[in-house]
Amino acid sequence: MDGYIRSARIHEYKKHLELDNISKPVIRGDEEVLVKVGASGLCHSDLHLISGEWKDIIPLNLPKTPGHEIAGWIEDVGKSVPENIMKPGDLVAVFGGWGCGWCIHCKSGDEQLCAFAKWPGLSSFDGGFSEYVLVPSYRFLLNVRASGTKPENLAPLTDAGLTPYRAIKKVRNMLGPGKNIGIVGIGGLGSYAIQYAKILGGGSKVFAMDRSDSKLELASKCGADHLVNLHSTDNLVDRIKAETGSKMLDVIIDCVGTDKTFYDSISVLAKGGSVVIVGLFGTAAKIPIAMTVLNEFKISGSLWGNYNELREVIELLTEGRIMNNITKFKLDDVNEAIELLKEGQIIGRGVLIP
Amino acid sequence: MDGYIRSARIHEYKKHLELDNISKPVIRGDEEVLVKVGASGLCHSDLHLISGEWKDIIPLNLPKTPGHEIAGWIEDVGKSVPENIMKPGDLVAVFGGWGCGWCIHCKSGDEQLCAFAKWPGLSSFDGGFSEYVLVPSYRFLLNVRASGTKPENLAPLTDAGLTPYRAIKKVRNMLGPGKNIGIVGIGGLGSYAIQYAKILGGGSKVFAMDRSDSKLELASKCGADHLVNLHSTDNLVDRIKAETGSKMLDVIIDCVGTDKTFYDSISVLAKGGSVVIVGLFGTAAKIPIAMTVLNEFKISGSLWGNYNELREVIELLTEGRIMNNITKFKLDDVNEAIELLKEGQIIGRGVLIP
Amino acid sequence: MDGYIRSARIHEYKKHLELDNISKPVIRGDEEVLVKVGASGLCHSDLHLISGEWKDIIPLNLPKTPGHEIAGWIEDVGKSVPENIMKPGDLVAVFGGWGCGWCIHCKSGDEQLCAFAKWPGLSSFDGGFSEYVLVPSYRFLLNVRASGTKPENLAPLTDAGLTPYRAIKKVRNMLGPGKNIGIVGIGGLGSYAIQYAKILGGGSKVFAMDRSDSKLELASKCGADHLVNLHSTDNLVDRIKAETGSKMLDVIIDCVGTDKTFYDSISVLAKGGSVVIVGLFGTAAKIPIAMTVLNEFKISGSLWGNYNELREVIELLTEGRIMNNITKFKLDDVNEAIELLKEGQIIGRGVLIP
Amino acid sequence: MDGYIRSARIHEYKKHLELDNISKPVIRGDEEVLVKVGASGLCHSDLHLISGEWKDIIPLNLPKTPGHEIAGWIEDVGKSVPENIMKPGDLVAVFGGWGCGWCIHCKSGDEQLCAFAKWPGLSSFDGGFSEYVLVPSYRFLLNVRASGTKPENLAPLTDAGLTPYRAIKKVRNMLGPGKNIGIVGIGGLGSYAIQYAKILGGGSKVFAMDRSDSKLELASKCGADHLVNLHSTDNLVDRIKAETGSKMLDVIIDCVGTDKTFYDSISVLAKGGSVVIVGLFGTAAKIPIAMTVLNEFKISGSLWGNYNELREVIELLTEGRIMNNITKFKLDDVNEAIELLKEGQIIGRGVLIP
Repeated sequence: MDGYIRSARIHEYKKHLELDNISKPVIRGDEEVLVKVGASGLCHSDLHLISGEWKDIIPLNLPKTPGHEIAGWIEDVGKSVPENIMKPGDLVAVFGGWGCGWCIHCKSGDEQLCAFAKWPGLSSFDGGFSEYVLVPSYRFLLNVRASGTKPENLAPLTDAGLTPYRAIKKVRNMLGPGKNIGIVGIGGLGSYAIQYAKILGGGSKVFAMDRSDSKLELASKCGADHLVNLHSTDNLVDRIKAETGSKMLDVIIDCVGTDKTFYDSISVLAKGGSVVIVGLFGTAAKIPIAMTVLNEFKISGSLWGNYNELREVIELLTEGRIMNNITKFKLDDVNEAIELLKEGQIIGRGVLIP
Repeated sequence: MDGYIRSARIHEYKKHLELDNISKPVIRGDEEVLVKVGASGLCHSDLHLISGEWKDIIPLNLPKTPGHEIAGWIEDVGKSVPENIMKPGDLVAVFGGWGCGWCIHCKSGDEQLCAFAKWPGLSSFDGGFSEYVLVPSYRFLLNVRASGTKPENLAPLTDAGLTPYRAIKKVRNMLGPGKNIGIVGIGGLGSYAIQYAKILGGGSKVFAMDRSDSKLELASKCGADHLVNLHSTDNLVDRIKAETGSKMLDVIIDCVGTDKTFYDSISVLAKGGSVVIVGLFGTAAKIPIAMTVLNEFKISGSLWGNYNELREVIELLTEGRIMNNITKFKLDDVNEAIELLKEGQIIGRGVLIP
Repeated sequence: MDGYIRSARIHEYKKHLELDNISKPVIRGDEEVLVKVGASGLCHSDLHLISGEWKDIIPLNLPKTPGHEIAGWIEDVGKSVPENIMKPGDLVAVFGGWGCGWCIHCKSGDEQLCAFAKWPGLSSFDGGFSEYVLVPSYRFLLNVRASGTKPENLAPLTDAGLTPYRAIKKVRNMLGPGKNIGIVGIGGLGSYAIQYAKILGGGSKVFAMDRSDSKLELASKCGADHLVNLHSTDNLVDRIKAETGSKMLDVIIDCVGTDKTFYDSISVLAKGGSVVIVGLFGTAAKIPIAMTVLNEFKISGSLWGNYNELREVIELLTEGRIMNNITKFKLDDVNEAIELLKEGQIIGRGVLIP
Repeated sequence: MDGYIRSARIHEYKKHLELDNISKPVIRGDEEVLVKVGASGLCHSDLHLISGEWKDIIPLNLPKTPGHEIAGWIEDVGKSVPENIMKPGDLVAVFGGWGCGWCIHCKSGDEQLCAFAKWPGLSSFDGGFSEYVLVPSYRFLLNVRASGTKPENLAPLTDAGLTPYRAIKKVRNMLGPGKNIGIVGIGGLGSYAIQYAKILGGGSKVFAMDRSDSKLELASKCGADHLVNLHSTDNLVDRIKAETGSKMLDVIIDCVGTDKTFYDSISVLAKGGSVVIVGLFGTAAKIPIAMTVLNEFKISGSLWGNYNELREVIELLTEGRIMNNITKFKLDDVNEAIELLKEGQIIGRGVLIP
């Protein structure tokens, strides 16, 4: 059906997505790019969006196409897209966090922190659960020239693979020989986090921490040095003490973000240590004030990643330095994939292929 | 009474200190130094110690002389104290946090973070509420050559004047033209913090925040640009928004450290902002997880300061760049001074003069 | 003459500029902005350009309008310039270093480092020695809302006031109480550098160093603590030793950049010290290898500044924290102004007013 | 011969060392430690010392025992050496750079930068070309508990293995995925540098650069990704351009330190790149001013390493993460070893075993 494309869209919150035939988007702005979707990652954020939990913080005009982890090929470009930089046929990853380009955050390169940042599939812009997606500027695309790169490996890097990378870069200077880093939660983000901790950790020992043995097994494949089952370990403090020679963990990346994981993290943190929270599962966590002051603990949040950080994780992919843990689904099976994700049945990242 | 000195000592918790005549300490170790006390600061920590609140975390053999903010003159030295560095008659500030000299923290210059650090008056070592104090090594002294420096101005720098300095140095790179910093709690530490924020803030606007107008008045004398009464301000968020042109506060130094001050701080923190806690009045504070992640907030504790940081605050004193806010008491009046401190009646720092 | 504007243009290298009537530029691109020039700074780079010295590194199609330090008012905007951000009538500073917006430098916020960066008046784009200038994107403008700001004070900030700011920000963490910073060369850049050293130096002592007493006098007005005449001082090393208590200079900003100034700088540099070169008067300088290694010297170059840095210096201007040292000329007198600059007769920055 | 030890000593400059029987040193100070030498590294600095080249900068009272890279076992300790920290029988590495313990550098943990730092074998203290060496404080020792560690692997870490580690730590934040680092000179230091670049480089590509193929072969065994023969490569710039996809080298560690190596380094340095010089073979090098400013190059020296850095390299050794390249000699063969080093015939580090 020429001029029409297939998109999986939210028509009503809490309902299944509907597979619609809609008009193919057309280039209108000078910098716009039309991308033929090659793969689109499926994220817990999509569950929050589809269920309507986020309808107040991200109000949408339905119907809306979700999908913020997108890779594909350039189909068409606006007239001011420089041909020497990007052209039809190029394989591209779509950088989310489309900033205003002018505020202090955008001008520092952290467009994802812009107060007006828009994400495809999480804003007025339609996302990647579709055959095509329209991107407002070529400056939000990153083309990949390395042969053999597949969109299904690229797509998850734009969020699941990007977010823990930024978190680890923030604390990289605290890592090195004799140091220990813990990754809490070995899901879509955590399995990348383990790998980055090995690459950027400068010889640090990497502790994978999760409540599921099958996820810890994945962590082990990704290079974790120690596997800690948070469910079956009786005394976490004693255990970490024993496995670190009483040094405890210098850095913890919390990919879950609940009061419980925070409590665990603080209890095994070394003096001067840092907890970086990237997970959003909880609402609040308690800081023990005296411990925090006396030990000079550092606690921070980390959001998404910036364009140059995406450049770097793609570099790691094309050099074969990171392993992908993905499960592919056809776009037509999007609702089944969503159900599996809800039940925690997808190992690694689920990816939709139109 | 030759060979005897006067010391104010804890004999029983919760009771008044007793003014005892005890044997004058004698040099035994090669690096030891005997200091004739010129002034000794009075700190909230002394109240915790004297009341017995801290008897489990800092177990003491009573009787014990408190006082961890000490300045005075060298009276006698051990045989390996290098004469070209320090000699009898020198005016000295006593650096607390006597570390092991060998662990990773000591070897980084942060002796106050040493797991085995001892403070005079807060450990097996007697403190400065006395005519003399014995210091285990000349390496814990800092001699001041600038003429006209008085021990009563020097003593409070070793804790009240040191702790906020370290806190502000940690976040100094976040300050500069167009930035805003808040100081919460304008007591012994806060009045120094205001001044450091002006000196190190690189043009930042300084907000003093307290529940008392008289303390805010002191902040104003110290150079604060905005005074915010946390008690009488109806809507703190709106007020800070108005006074910062919606930029909010980039950095907050919390010299109180309660759940309430933390809550206030987080509510007026700019994106990417940092709260540094140095106060120890509360037990726990709640972090809102989504806000922390989405805004990339940074929360940390800061403890005391190190030797080089003390060097720097003394430099500020001798160059006349910081104002001292002290109230002098005779050592004999120590119990009266303690009562006034309990009642919040001392403006600035109370200092005992033997 | 409607539709025509007056521009001072290079028609032939080494000749006087000619004052031409040329067509008024017209908005063609969606993001373009037409700026009515309020003031345009006159820089040594313009002398190099006009003389033809740079014709190989910056090949120009003559005639060409120089002028890269521009401030003025928005006259007209392209259709995608967001009205809530910028609109006709706004007073704006023009940020130079128009980058590609896509490379690793642009995406880090350092567009001035982009390999394809273009400067108005120093590239295919015409500059500010004119009644109007066309800017390719509103993202290269910074509008100033503070009332009372004058374009002649704003214009020099975009280069003379920006370049030393970036240089000092790079070494700011090395400055503080007890530290010493030297500014070599008190011309257009140096007089700003002195002021930034006071604001960002955290209590450092500021040494102004030049061969001319009248320039040192200007430095003194800008707040320099020590004035060192490099011409009349017999033994520079002894002098700096005496004035710093043997500490020497921790940081030197070299606004000249010759073998001689570099030699002087290295000779008075403290252990671990840093020389930042921003001047371009020389061709090469000699590093003594053993001294550099044994003292862990740091030597670096600093180029222009980025957009956020310009935001910060403008903040300093509008808050009245920096003093302007400018000499105004009418655009019609551009050739006279150029002659005076050549002869070193302009104190502070020369600024052309159309 | 009880009470006597064998030491190889300089009696006259430019002559062979003499193997003397001298009195065994005896503990006199409270913190002193007597170390039975297990191994002592042989360094180019020893050649400079023995030849008398350094007699003005390091004046010695002859006879003098050289040797500043020492490991062995504790034989005896002074009375204030804490038994829980160090005791007879412990295997120890001797940290050089015995600082005053009190100056700004020592108090920052960088004792090797102390103006009064003393090195064993390079000062009034005798060094490790001997059966025993007396160390003034246990604070200059680092004991190794990992079983199986051999003194001959430990000794070279105290200089050859420490110096490039510090250099790379200084620029580590510039390394990561997609970055390139060059190591110039693959001798005693360079072969460690290659390994650290792999461990701390966060995925950077490592370029080994030397004039000898056999040394490049060693670099390859240490993990170098690219081998560049500086002697046989016709056009270094083109070659590096080709092998980096025009990115050039972000960081260069120059273990040679001549005008030639510096010239080569600058010519292949990426924009914003950093050259760290640790080698001392040359006297001066030329910086091109415009290139340095326009590209924001950074050039610095790095000296030795500090105690915590030594802790970290020892951690890498005991975890089996670094390969040792040593050639063992008997202490009796010290003069033969010196000749071989002069002729460039020792691959890796030469180590003397008493």
